[in-house]
This record gives sequence, C-alpha cells and structure tokens, in this order.
Amino acid sequence: MKIAICQANPIVGDLKGNQSKILAGYRRGVDENVDLIIFPELFLCGYPPLDLVEKKEFRNAVRKASEEIAERTGQTGLIFGSITEDYEDKIGTGVYNSALLCYNGGIRFIQSKTLIPNYDVFDEVRYFESAKEINVFGFKDERLGISICEDIWNDADYWKHRRYTLDPIQKLVDEGSTILINISASPYAYGKRKQKREMLSVLTRNDNLPLVYACCVGAQSDLIFDGGSMCFNSNGGLDLLGKPFEEDFLIYDTKGRYNLVPEVESPFPEEALKGLILGLKDYAGKTGFKKALVGLSGGIDSAIVTFIAVEALGARNVDVVMMPSKFSSPGSIKDSEKLIQNLGISSHNITIQPVVDETLELLKPVFNGMKEDTTEENLQSRLRGIYLMAISNKLGYLLCTTGNKSEIATGYATLYGDMCGALAVIGDVYKTQIYEIADFINRDKKIIPQEIIDKAPSAELRPNQTDQDSLPPYDLLDRVLKMYLEEQKEYEEISKSVGDPFLVKKILRLVDKNEFKRKQAAPILRISTKAFGYGRRYPIVQRWRN
Amino acid sequence: MKIAICQANPIVGDLKGNQSKILAGYRRGVDENVDLIIFPELFLCGYPPLDLVEKKEFRNAVRKASEEIAERTGQTGLIFGSITEDYEDKIGTGVYNSALLCYNGGIRFIQSKTLIPNYDVFDEVRYFESAKEINVFGFKDERLGISICEDIWNDADYWKHRRYTLDPIQKLVDEGSTILINISASPYAYGKRKQKREMLSVLTRNDNLPLVYACCVGAQSDLIFDGGSMCFNSNGGLDLLGKPFEEDFLIYDTKGRYNLVPEVESPFPEEALKGLILGLKDYAGKTGFKKALVGLSGGIDSAIVTFIAVEALGARNVDVVMMPSKFSSPGSIKDSEKLIQNLGISSHNITIQPVVDETLELLKPVFNGMKEDTTEENLQSRLRGIYLMAISNKLGYLLCTTGNKSEIATGYATLYGDMCGALAVIGDVYKTQIYEIADFINRDKKIIPQEIIDKAPSAELRPNQTDQDSLPPYDLLDRVLKMYLEEQKEYEEISKSVGDPFLVKKILRLVDKNEFKRKQAAPILRISTKAFGYGRRYPIVQRWRN
Repeated sequence: MKIAICQANPIVGDLKGNQSKILAGYRRGVDENVDLIIFPELFLCGYPPLDLVEKKEFRNAVRKASEEIAERTGQTGLIFGSITEDYEDKIGTGVYNSALLCYNGGIRFIQSKTLIPNYDVFDEVRYFESAKEINVFGFKDERLGISICEDIWNDADYWKHRRYTLDPIQKLVDEGSTILINISASPYAYGKRKQKREMLSVLTRNDNLPLVYACCVGAQSDLIFDGGSMCFNSNGGLDLLGKPFEEDFLIYDTKGRYNLVPEVESPFPEEALKGLILGLKDYAGKTGFKKALVGLSGGIDSAIVTFIAVEALGARNVDVVMMPSKFSSPGSIKDSEKLIQNLGISSHNITIQPVVDETLELLKPVFNGMKEDTTEENLQSRLRGIYLMAISNKLGYLLCTTGNKSEIATGYATLYGDMCGALAVIGDVYKTQIYEIADFINRDKKIIPQEIIDKAPSAELRPNQTDQDSLPPYDLLDRVLKMYLEEQKEYEEISKSVGDPFLVKKILRLVDKNEFKRKQAAPILRISTKAFGYGRRYPIVQRWRN
Repeated sequence: MKIAICQANPIVGDLKGNQSKILAGYRRGVDENVDLIIFPELFLCGYPPLDLVEKKEFRNAVRKASEEIAERTGQTGLIFGSITEDYEDKIGTGVYNSALLCYNGGIRFIQSKTLIPNYDVFDEVRYFESAKEINVFGFKDERLGISICEDIWNDADYWKHRRYTLDPIQKLVDEGSTILINISASPYAYGKRKQKREMLSVLTRNDNLPLVYACCVGAQSDLIFDGGSMCFNSNGGLDLLGKPFEEDFLIYDTKGRYNLVPEVESPFPEEALKGLILGLKDYAGKTGFKKALVGLSGGIDSAIVTFIAVEALGARNVDVVMMPSKFSSPGSIKDSEKLIQNLGISSHNITIQPVVDETLELLKPVFNGMKEDTTEENLQSRLRGIYLMAISNKLGYLLCTTGNKSEIATGYATLYGDMCGALAVIGDVYKTQIYEIADFINRDKKIIPQEIIDKAPSAELRPNQTDQDSLPPYDLLDRVLKMYLEEQKEYEEISKSVGDPFLVKKILRLVDKNEFKRKQAAPILRISTKAFGYGRRYPIVQRWRN
C-alpha cells in the first residue's frame, strides 16, 4: 500500500486553516496516486487544544469541519486526528481523541485513543475518555491497525515499567492487522527521537508488521513538535524519516525496498538550535508578531537569543537594545556592537543610570538609610525591563527573555526585570549547553564574538560582580540540576554522585524556593524531558526539604 | 460511636508540623473519651502536594511519618489522610491517596481513594491510582465505610451527569457499613458548602446511614479550604457543622440527638471576605512573611485589598504606598488618606512623575515622534510596580496585587505594572462583587470612605480616563464573564441571554486573547467555581473564535 504522511504544522484552534491544510495534503496525495494519506493526532484542532475541548461550540465546530473534510474525499483514504463525541453516554466527558478514516465522501471508521496520557505536560484525562473498542479496519487489500500516539508507548517487550495495563497495539496485532498506523503529536525533547526509533524498531520486528508513524511539526506556545515521522518495515528497519523541525510530505510503499535511515538525531547543539528557532518563529508567526526585540547585555545568553531571533524572523526583523549602567563593563557595549555588526541588525543604546539615580533618590525617605542589597540590583534590572516593554509596546515587537535554565532553576533572575517578555527562548537550556550552542553557531565563521564567549558570566548589577559570586560553577550546577530535574533523582542519590551533600542541598533548596518566580515566568520553549512550566507542577507554598 | 473531627490547617510538605497536629488532635480526642478521631484527606503531607508526590524521598518520608503516628496510638482509633504505595505493582504509579486507620500501635486498615478527580484544579490521575478494593472495616461495635473526598461525589441519586461509572459509596453501603466516613480536601468556592449539604443529605437519607465528613481548612498557595466539616444523621439531617474558615474540633455521637443546623453558608460578601482573609493570612504565614504592602490608588480595589491585609495580618503589619502622577485626581490622595486613618496603618507618598518624565525623555530617540498610546500608560503603571517591588524587597513585605477578576479577565491590567506582586488577593472577585464586599465592610461603621465607593472606576493613566472608556459597564461585563467562565456558557447562549451579540463577542475575545497576561500573573486566591490559574488551562497561542 502506498501511504503518504502529511507532516504539517497546524495552529491550535484554527479550524479553517488546519482544514485547508488537510484538504491540500489530500489533493497532493491523490495527485501522487497514493492509497492513503495520513495527518497527525488532533491535527484538525491543533495539539494541545487544552480547555478549548471543554467548549461545546468548539467541539461542534470541529465536528462540522471533520464532516466537511470527509465529504470531499474520493476513493483515496484519508486519516486525520480530530475530536469525537459520544452523545448518548451520560457518564464521563463522552469526548474522544480520535483518528477518522474517510473516503468516498464520508467518515468510514473511527478509532479513538485508548491510552490517555496524564503526566508531565499531558492532561488528557481532563478531556478524553479511553476508547471503548479497539478494532482493525479493512481498507483496500490491507487490514489497518490504527492507534493514536500514547497507544504505542506501552509495549511490554520494551518497557520495564509500564504506565498502563492495556496494550492496544497487541490487540491490533491479535486482530490481524497487516499495517500499523500511529498518528501522533509528541512534544520534542532531545534524545526522544532516538528513543522512539529504538522502541518502534523493537515493536515492528517483534510484531512482524510495518508501521507508519505520522508526527506533528511546529510549536504551540511552549511546546515544540519536531516532525521526524517514521516508516518501519516488518523487520524493524527504519525505511523513511520525516525532516526534523520542518513540514514534510513522505510517501511510503509498504511493499517497497529502502535503504535504512542511519541516524535520526543530530548532536545536541544542532537539534536544540533548530528546535528553538522553530519555537520562536511559530510563537511570533501564530500570534501575529513580525518583529522581535532583545535586550543585549554583552553576555552570551542574550547573544544566543538574538542569533535565534535572526534565524527565526530575519535580520531586518530583529532589534536590540543596549542599556548600560555604571556597573556595565566597557567591553559589554563593544562586544555587543560586534555581534550587531556580525548579524546585521538594528540597535538602540539607552543609558538607565539617570533613571536609576532618580528612582533611588525618590525612595530614600522610605529606605531611610538602610544599606544597599539586592534591592538596588533588582531595580536596575526592572528599569531595563521597563525600557524593553515600552519599546515592545510602542513598536509592536515581541520581547524575548534571555534567561537560561540554570538561572531560572536557581532564581538567579529578576521578576519583572530580565524576566519581562512574551517568550523565554532559552529557558530550557542550561548555561553549559549555551556554550555548546555558541560553538556550534561559530563552527564555520565567528558569528558570536569570542569575547562574549570568553568573559566570566555576570549580571553586571554591582561592581565586579560575577555569577560565581552567588552560584556554584556552572558545570557542577548544571550536573546537579539535570539529575534533579530531568533524571528525577533526589538529594541522596545526587549527593552520592556529586560528592558534596551541603552544596547539593543548597542547590535543591534554591530550585524549590524559587517556584514563585517561575509561576510568573514567560512560557519556556521546551527541549528537554523536564522543562519548567506546564510539565512541572510544584507547590509555591510548601515546606518539604530533602 | 463518639467521633472527633479535627478540622485542622496543614502546610503542604511540612511533614513534621502536620504530624504534630495529628498527634495533638489524637491526644485531645483521647482526653475527650471519643472512640475515633478523624483528620482530612492527605493531611499528613498537605493538600495539594502536586509533584512532590513524584519524589521518592518525599513518599518515603511520608510513610515513615505515618508509621511513627500509628505507633503512638492506643485503643482509640485514628483516621488520617496520607500517601501509600504498592511496591509490588509494576504498572502505573503504584501510589495511592489513602485513609489510614490506626490503633493499638499500628496501621490496621487502609482504604484508598477510588474516584480520582482530574478536572478544574484537580490533577490527581497524574499521581494516584484508583483503589484496587473497597472494603468495610469493623471497628469497635460499628462497621466503618471509609471513603476519600471525590468518592462521595458520584451518587446516582443526586447527579444527572456523573463523571464515573463506579460508585464506591454504594459499594460500602452494600457491604453493610453502619457509619459512613469521608475525609476530604475540597477547595472552596462560594455556593459549594450549600451544594455539599444538599448532596450529602440526599445520600445519607437514601442510604439510611450517618455520615461523618471531615474537611480541611486553610489556604495552600491559591486554593482556600473552608472547613465546614459536616455530621449527618441517618435521616439526612445535618447535626453538626464545623466552623467555616477556621480550625475546629467537633465531637459527634452517632447515637446522639441534635438540633439541625439551619444555614451552612452566609451571604456572598461575608463568605468571600472570610475566605480571602484566610487566603492572605496563610500565604503570608506559610511563606514566612509578617508584613504586607499595597499600592493604594484611591480606588475601591486597592482599598478592599488593604482592608483584607489589615484583617489578615493586623494594622501594624500593613504598609501602603501612594504614588500619584499628573493624571491622579486630587481626590485620590485625600480619599486614600482617609482610609489610612480609618485603618490605622502606615503609609508612604512618592511621586512617580519625575521618573516618568525622565524615562520618556530617554526613550524619545527610539520613539522618534510617534504619538502617545497605551505605551505611556503602561509605563506609569510599571514604574509604580518598580517602587512597590523595591520597597517589598528592601523591607521584606509581601506585595499584594489589587486587580479584580473583571480586569484580569479582560486584560485591563499592566503586565509587570499593577500585576506585580506575590498574591492576587481579589483576582477571583468581580468588580460588582467588590462593591458588595465594600458595603458589607461598612455595615456598621464607615471604614471604606464613601468617596472611594462612589467615584467612577479609573486607572488614572491619562487625563479624565475612566474604565468605561475601554470596557462595557461592569454590571453587564460581569454578567457576561460569569456566564462564560463559571457557568461555562458560550457565545450563542450568552448572546441570547444578554441580547448584544456584538458586545458579547468583543468581551469573549478580550478574555481569550489576554491569556498571555494571565500566564504571568501572581497566584489568584480562588473563591469561585472557575478562577483564573491552575483550574483554567487555555492555550496562549490559538486562533479559535466563537
């Protein structure tokens, strides 16, 4: 059977636009003489639709759009993800996350999702019931075993610890499927594509069936979907791979012969960079922003964010602001100007010092001779935030925040200061990873000036300040953070591995007590298995200490 | 049987503190010669523990603390909510939300929660498996039918639309319970206590069994738990009611005779006010803040927040800042001063005008002759935010935001400006409700000056501005918002009811498109069935339009 995967980029809630993409993909498939065209999970409404699913008017509009699509199908099959409803059922939500198989003008078969994920960024039990039935459907000469995303993540042969008792894929195999199809919308994390390949290779080899795995691409708020759709033969070999971080249209002949795909993932810096560029591009594009604004400090974080903005929106759509104070090193401006020149972007230079001085003068009666502390540091950062927001408001720019994951984790950031902005572009990237990305950007040509890479990280909010005055060295810090956050290890295990229980405790404490700042952070583009934001729900007011 | 309910206030994660409260309550019950002492759901770890549950070290500490408590019991029974684990089970989380019945030095019986709520603010499927068994347990001369919170919210006799197929209470009744016990941690919303009474009255009458319903009290971040534990006789009569919004210790004799409780709820303003006072008091107390700070504008919102702060923390722990600009009406300061005097609190008066002028001067080259717009308005609000945050940082005050639900819904608020603060005290209170609360506060004595109540609401960010320049009249706006948010009605239904489709569309659009601001809002104390925050998950980037 010839099957096309439309690895396309939907917009959450944009039923008209997503419908058009489905119809255009269908026409292209028909032109290419395929038997079946497949779109990813919940493509028609975009994923994740979140509480839109709770709106009846929304669900009705999705149903209407689904029917309109089905009406326009001919002999060629079309599978796309949509929401369906059981209006008879008076218990539970009655709402399903479904794959609709359409041809000859109608919806001919519906398979709903059986395993409903409810961990990390997934809240699907909030909206969807589990499928009541799992069936194979005969289409042309094949018996299609259709499943949705999570359904394929519970293989007893692959997982040591399973989340669910049911294995819907086993059921499809037992019912005599000749081709497995999975439609998916699985958010990106570095390393996950490789894991998918391994898992699905085991599955297809053991079940001796080909698998067509259609993935979503594009970013929806903080979640990035990386494409990378996969077609496996019945020996577990990966025959085709969709482009990562781009729309793609793949045609797979389940009877064809292919050279196996060697690698599915590039090294971290390349993957992360592509993901973040797509993340920013889609956030801007889908919210209607043409231009982005970055506060350029002379440090490496804002340099990388600026580079990402230029790649996402084009040099002429990126504007930067330098806002020196009396604590800014002379190098800060010079290095920034070099970067501005390398990238060919426009810039502004506004001092904050007179306003800092005036504000502190006015506050004197309240401060009443109390000595300087972080208040004065935060104040500078917040005044910079005011400038950036004013320019963003006046000129309609999307303001990008420049905090990295190490800072956001430890609270080394000023609320309403450097945390101002619509999107935290590198908020899921550790400081040590920022350097890896910088080296990758500079692989052929010095784009990020070496001075910016070499200088000791500093917030420049007091004389001769460096990050290491307040934080442990970044390589150690990031190691601890990664174990704590992504690997979900805890105090004892981390201490044993790192060897400094006191320091480990201090770091975990910083992470835990700064939850109040993260509550008010901009959405953070997610590129790891555990990003701050939606997928990590930590109480703000709490007293647990390891 | 004589049963004591300890309606106590735990702190999330404070295992030592919560353990002490359990032991103290147990001793008191023993002294009072009761047979059984009951604490609410997950009392030992505090509710909701959120992702703390995913930490093995946390779960182990909870287990250890549970065992320590059990060891200290004698003949008198003790039931408390805790986390348990099935270490054998290799599928799913293996973690349970359980009621532990302890006596004679050990945990004698465990009943875990069967119905796992996963809607609105509840994410329990993320953490907990459903109980594998539902059993009645014989204790002294009775057969106890123990359930946990949600278990009792699925009565087929009461609900037209049920969430779950299973009815654990029916099972307990069928198994021959002689007393029903439910331990609960159900967040407050106005009207819910009345609903609970109705529902549980139907249930106890139909099942012909007494019910002891132990509720939690206290606020955990944004969620307020209102106490109001209930004891029903087997005729459906409410014999006892725990104090609302306070700790309480109730003793109920299931064979005793009581005068029925007439009313369970006070009118809205009184209930809301008590809830918000508790919310702020616990947020401050549990995070270690002694003092609160409010920016006093001369409007009614900041006046009410200041009153709440005074009630929560005491007049000498509340400080306000007046920050007039050239657009502030002379009345603003005069009215504020009257309030300050009425409340007996300290205050500061700092003009923002010189800094506004200086900042705009410095921005001139960037703004390049563009005309004034909301940028200049936002800038004033943000500068006020900087003053407030500086004072909060320097003096260690908890900054309260003063935005109401009508403003937060429509985005009539400045991000990083008046939205600065640790807690949105009245963020779940509509503007029209704010007036009701003001009248209630003034019921005996004019505390909120009449001038503040009477003046037209205004942000005072441009000359002669009033809220109604940008927003529909508040009574209409709030009616639409309430239908849209709490009642989950949608465009067509609201238009039919309100009669102005164009205006309704405009309002819903304002709500939807301002999600990005709410993403970065402070936690909002919840007093309605649908507050902004954790219980409402709306995509930021989306294009659905009604």
